Amino acid sequence: MLKTKYLHLHLETSHQLPAHLYLTEEAWAAAARRHRALAKRLRVTIGWDGEILEQSLRTADFMISSNPPRKQLRERAPVLKWIQTAGAGVDGLMPLDWLPDGVTLTNNSGSHGAKAEDSCAMALLMLHSRMPQVLANQRNRTWQYVLTHPIAGRTAVVIGFGDLGAAAGRAAKKLGMKVIAVTRSGKAGRPADACVPSSRIEQALPKADYVVVASPLTPLTRGLLDAARLALLKPGAALVNIGRSPIVDYEALRGKLERGELSGAVLDVFDQEPLPADSPLWTTPNLFVLPHITCDSPGYVENLFDRWFANFQRFLAGKRLVNVVDRRLGY
Amino acid sequence: MLKTKYLHLHLETSHQLPAHLYLTEEAWAAAARRHRALAKRLRVTIGWDGEILEQSLRTADFMISSNPPRKQLRERAPVLKWIQTAGAGVDGLMPLDWLPDGVTLTNNSGSHGAKAEDSCAMALLMLHSRMPQVLANQRNRTWQYVLTHPIAGRTAVVIGFGDLGAAAGRAAKKLGMKVIAVTRSGKAGRPADACVPSSRIEQALPKADYVVVASPLTPLTRGLLDAARLALLKPGAALVNIGRSPIVDYEALRGKLERGELSGAVLDVFDQEPLPADSPLWTTPNLFVLPHITCDSPGYVENLFDRWFANFQRFLAGKRLVNVVDRRLGY
Repeated sequence: MLKTKYLHLHLETSHQLPAHLYLTEEAWAAAARRHRALAKRLRVTIGWDGEILEQSLRTADFMISSNPPRKQLRERAPVLKWIQTAGAGVDGLMPLDWLPDGVTLTNNSGSHGAKAEDSCAMALLMLHSRMPQVLANQRNRTWQYVLTHPIAGRTAVVIGFGDLGAAAGRAAKKLGMKVIAVTRSGKAGRPADACVPSSRIEQALPKADYVVVASPLTPLTRGLLDAARLALLKPGAALVNIGRSPIVDYEALRGKLERGELSGAVLDVFDQEPLPADSPLWTTPNLFVLPHITCDSPGYVENLFDRWFANFQRFLAGKRLVNVVDRRLGY
Repeated sequence: MLKTKYLHLHLETSHQLPAHLYLTEEAWAAAARRHRALAKRLRVTIGWDGEILEQSLRTADFMISSNPPRKQLRERAPVLKWIQTAGAGVDGLMPLDWLPDGVTLTNNSGSHGAKAEDSCAMALLMLHSRMPQVLANQRNRTWQYVLTHPIAGRTAVVIGFGDLGAAAGRAAKKLGMKVIAVTRSGKAGRPADACVPSSRIEQALPKADYVVVASPLTPLTRGLLDAARLALLKPGAALVNIGRSPIVDYEALRGKLERGELSGAVLDVFDQEPLPADSPLWTTPNLFVLPHITCDSPGYVENLFDRWFANFQRFLAGKRLVNVVDRRLGY
C-alpha cells in the first residue's frame, strides 16, 4: 500500500561511457545519504546497457541518463515526467521531436564552470607562452629562449557565453585580457567587455589574439568557424575548443597549424571520442590534444546527483525546474 | 670644457649572453629618446666582451653590466659610483668583498613580476591538471581520462616572497589557493595567508600541494630543499623552480619523480645554462624543462634602461637609489 507513495527514478547507465560518468550504486547511495529526506520519496532502479530498461520505463516517473531512449517513448514510459541528462550538451538528442508532451528535459549545465575556468586560464597561458614550441624543444633537448610578454592586454574572443563561456571570460579577465563575447543574441553579461551577435562574428574574429569556443552545438553554431571565418584570424592567433568539435572545421584548422598561420591550438573535443589512433590531429604541430577533460572533475556524478536532488525538491514544491532544455534553441 | 659636465655611463655587454640580454646601441638609443633630458647629462660607451673595458673604466661614473669586473676594481675605476646589474639575482657576484666602498650595487629586481605571475599560474595549472601525463599520452596517441578537481583550495608553499615570490602568491590567490610564504624573516606581506621563517621550513613543506621556489640564491637558501626536506613533501605534491637551481637538490628531485613520489615539476633554472644535451633532466618523467623564460619578457633590456633612468633621476636628486643590494643579505 505504501508503495504508491513512492516516485520511481530510473538511472540508465552504460559501460560504453567513460568510467567517470558511470551512474553507480555507490555514488547514488552516497547521494541518497546526503539528501535523506528527499531520497525517502523515491524508489530507484539502476540499469546498465539497457538490461532492465523496458520494465523500468513502464513505471518510471523520472530518468537520469546520458543517452535516454527516444523511440516511441510515450508508449514505453506512460508516466514519465522528467528526463535529466548527465551532460551539459544535448546536441546528440536533437531535434527534440521524440520528447513527449509533458516530459521535461533538463541538462547538467552549470556544473562545469570552476574546472572550465582553470582549464581556460591554463590553455590561454600555455598558448601565449608558446608551450607547444617550448615542449617540442624539450623533446629535442634544445635550449631556445622563447620569450613572450605577459598576456595582459591581449584579446580573447569567446564564442558562447553560458556556463563555459562565462568561465572562459572569468579566466581571461583574471589574466588582464580583454574579452569579446559572441552570442546568439548579441548580449552577454559580465565579465565580457563587449559582445557581438554570432551573425556578425566576422567583426570579432580579426580582433582575436585567442579564440575560445565554448558554445553548445546547435544548428546555429554547427560549422560556425569554417575555413572562411578561420581565415579572418590574425597571423599568430591561437584557438581553444572546449565546446563541441563540429563548431570548428578541424581540417581547415589543421592546415593553418601545419602552415604556421596560427601559433597553436588546444582541442578538448573531437568528432569521435576517443580520438582514433590514426587521426592526424595527434601529431599536428603546435596542437595540444586533450581527452575531453577540461570541464569535468572526478566528482562529476556526485555533483550531478546533488543537482538532481535540488531540482527534485523544486519539482515536489511545484516550482519550475532549472536547466530545462529549450526545444527550439537546443540548449 | 662642456665635457666636464657629462657623467660617464659604460654599458658592458657580451656575446656570451642570451641575445635578449644584449645591451645594444639600438635599445640604448631608444631609451635615450624616452628620457631625453636625463640622457643629455650622460656620455655613454657600449663595450662588447671586454674590448674597451679598461679605458672605459678609467672614467666611468656608472656601469650597467650582467657581469661587472671585480678584480682590483677601485684601481681600475677610480671614479665609479654605481653599478647596475642586468638581472635580479646577484648570487654570481657574492660575496661582495670586491665592491669598493662608495660604490653602490643595484639589481633589476621588480621587473619580472608580471611575467612571473603568468608563468606561475600556468605552471601550477599544468601540474595540477596532470599535463605531464596528458601530453605524454598525446605523444603515444593514448586517450585516457585524467580528471582533476579545480585547483581552488589547494596549498602553495612559496619560498621567497620578494618580486618573484609575491608574483607566485598573486597567481596562486587568483586561482583560489592558500598561500604559505617561507621567508628569511618569517614575515611576508600580502597576498600570503601565512608565513614561516626559512629556519622552520619543515613546518610548511608537509602542507604543500605545490612548492614554488622563488627566492634569491644566498648562503641561507643554497641547498634549502635538500633530499631530507624534499622527503617531507606529500606523495603527489609538485614543485616549480623559478628562482635558482642550487636551492633545490635536483638529483634528489629527479629520484622522486622517477619513483612517482611527486606528481610533477616545472624547472626554469639550471646549474648550467643552456642545460647540456646529455642532462638526464630533459627526459625525467613528469618534468617540464623550461629554458629560463618564466620571468623575462622580450622588452627586458628596454625595461632595464627605463628603470635605470628612474634611478638615475634619484641619483641626481641626491635620493636613495632603489634595488640597492644589501652586502650582508646578498639581495
